[in-house]
Amino acid sequence: MTGSRERRPGGSPLGLHRVIKPAGVLPQAAWQLDNGPDIWPDEVRVRVDRLNLDAASFRQLRDATGGGPAAMRAAVLEIVADRGKMQNPVTGSGGMLTGVVDEAGPDSPLGLAAGDRIATLVSLSLTPLAITDGLARWDGRSEQVPCAGHAILFGRSIAAVLPGDLPAGLALSVMDVCGAPALTERVVLNALLARPAAPASARSGDRGPGVPGVVPRGSGAGGRPPGPIVVILGAGGKSGSLSAVAARRAGARGVIGVVPTAQEAAAVRAAGLADEVVIADARDPVGLAAAVQSAGGPADVTVVCVDVPGCEGGAVLATAQGGTVIFFSMATSFSAAALGAEGMAADVTMLIGNGYVPGHADLALDLIRAEPGVRRLFETRHANEVG
Amino acid sequence: MTGSRERRPGGSPLGLHRVIKPAGVLPQAAWQLDNGPDIWPDEVRVRVDRLNLDAASFRQLRDATGGGPAAMRAAVLEIVADRGKMQNPVTGSGGMLTGVVDEAGPDSPLGLAAGDRIATLVSLSLTPLAITDGLARWDGRSEQVPCAGHAILFGRSIAAVLPGDLPAGLALSVMDVCGAPALTERVVLNALLARPAAPASARSGDRGPGVPGVVPRGSGAGGRPPGPIVVILGAGGKSGSLSAVAARRAGARGVIGVVPTAQEAAAVRAAGLADEVVIADARDPVGLAAAVQSAGGPADVTVVCVDVPGCEGGAVLATAQGGTVIFFSMATSFSAAALGAEGMAADVTMLIGNGYVPGHADLALDLIRAEPGVRRLFETRHANEVG
Repeated sequence: MTGSRERRPGGSPLGLHRVIKPAGVLPQAAWQLDNGPDIWPDEVRVRVDRLNLDAASFRQLRDATGGGPAAMRAAVLEIVADRGKMQNPVTGSGGMLTGVVDEAGPDSPLGLAAGDRIATLVSLSLTPLAITDGLARWDGRSEQVPCAGHAILFGRSIAAVLPGDLPAGLALSVMDVCGAPALTERVVLNALLARPAAPASARSGDRGPGVPGVVPRGSGAGGRPPGPIVVILGAGGKSGSLSAVAARRAGARGVIGVVPTAQEAAAVRAAGLADEVVIADARDPVGLAAAVQSAGGPADVTVVCVDVPGCEGGAVLATAQGGTVIFFSMATSFSAAALGAEGMAADVTMLIGNGYVPGHADLALDLIRAEPGVRRLFETRHANEVG
Repeated sequence: MTGSRERRPGGSPLGLHRVIKPAGVLPQAAWQLDNGPDIWPDEVRVRVDRLNLDAASFRQLRDATGGGPAAMRAAVLEIVADRGKMQNPVTGSGGMLTGVVDEAGPDSPLGLAAGDRIATLVSLSLTPLAITDGLARWDGRSEQVPCAGHAILFGRSIAAVLPGDLPAGLALSVMDVCGAPALTERVVLNALLARPAAPASARSGDRGPGVPGVVPRGSGAGGRPPGPIVVILGAGGKSGSLSAVAARRAGARGVIGVVPTAQEAAAVRAAGLADEVVIADARDPVGLAAAVQSAGGPADVTVVCVDVPGCEGGAVLATAQGGTVIFFSMATSFSAAALGAEGMAADVTMLIGNGYVPGHADLALDLIRAEPGVRRLFETRHANEVG
């Protein structure tokens, strides 16, 4: 842990020099990475204090092990020992981490210095990681894992210094999913831009003149066409709640939150995240589409933030012809989405939720500062996790 | 095969009434469908003469069985007997079929009549199918499978009457992939529309002023900004070759075809599909990005038409910041694409290739009529398959 003793040649900004096998692939696709602590000149070594496992990965581990503390610890330790990174072999996903910069190479472009408290915004699935404490402080019941060890950032990795005005655990929870509100905002803004150019008749037929339940927003402002109807599947979750408020602030005409239980519905209503909240199983396409319709749907934009498999058909069926579905869930099946849309003759644009949008961390942190309802939801839900 | 004896109640246009298990899911997600020959009032029964297996499914079956005729036949027959549809359980994908309409229900909205020779444009993965000839005429070596049996179309299925001016096998090959050129055209047209609104400085930094190798197209026409650079991975294949000419005709500034071998490169050059042709392994991100760069890249739009796994990282890395990747390959991994882009800090829009775009069959057939190079490629490659 004392850093590199000698000057190494420059590393690849993508971390190719850390790939052990198979040779020549990118770190995310590699089975095994070199997690050694000595850094290349453009790398940064981080002293890890917390992992935040991806929701789909955590769920898979819990289902596979039964969820007991010892079994959960053993499962994560085995993956990291085997692969040199925390990438769940079943889901392919990882998560993120927080820690303190231990050493920044002289050629690192990340602008970090020793002592900076940071969160990584690239996936654990491509981040060299070593664990040294056996995860002794983790009870296996939370996605947030207290952890001692080190991790390596490449030249093109993304990391954010944790903000001083928010608790670290809260900021971590928010930044973990910050790609979702950023991409949702972009899609809603694009829909607003596209509206004036589209012939009015092209869309009005998809939905009756009456849109019950949804309060029009901004429809009178300067004659601007109303924004899209946005449906959030999993509106009570982290990415879902942030995406809901991002959609509203970007100019959505209405936001419909879909949740699985009455308890979730009450929480989403109390947080003021959505104009309408409906209870439906996102894995049931017919039931979901009917519920969305009853709340003012179909959607112009549907945002899938539920971490269970089988929601592709429902998302497509709840979306109007010409609309857009953004899949953020790592449980999404590519072929189920592609073939499902084709099979229903659904002319919808389907986006793979890219976790990187420039400015995504700042946007999400600003949302949590500006939206007390979302902040309360995060603090209530993750009370035990906020360190 | 004599049709329904009695009047049944109306079926679901999505085919929900044909789902056996699990109950309540859409036909595409179902493990097993009811493939009985009696039709509901809004259904159509087709006398099947040929299946066209999805490329990813065919490859998986060949790899799993060794590719021998008996083993291939047994594999397909077992899937259809078990599931009531030809949906490969490993890839999740299907294919399409041709046949002759045997009976159209009185309430069918598809406009078909008994005797029409048609191709289905919805996936076999959701089409009830029964095989009655044991696939005796199939040698297992082609994706096109001579077959006797029946299939069922729902109210919202899509089928096209085969054109009279093209051989049936050729039309089938073209319609099988017609979603790809249609979506490629739409994305290129959107890129052209978006250009004037974007600040010039936002994109010019991504690419040097010199773009070697690519002939600018249309850049002088009325001061219109030049179209996007489009890279086609798998430009020699069916969806790739059609997407290449669709991109060019929609206004791409340059089309770069990527193929795996010198033989493919020669074929693509002879067909005149692309401005530049480069040989690269699409599974090798670093090599692919370098090859695309040398031919005038990076891409503004990358179209992934190769049916092997592991091309996500390369597609992203070959695409400029702000660009778009369209994934048509059924071998695409959702999580590899999402996490790969995030891991490379790549601000790219990633589309799941929807097989349905309105007018897709007509567009693709018009391309094959207007582009003799593409037609020759189809006829040469699929000479043994054209019936």
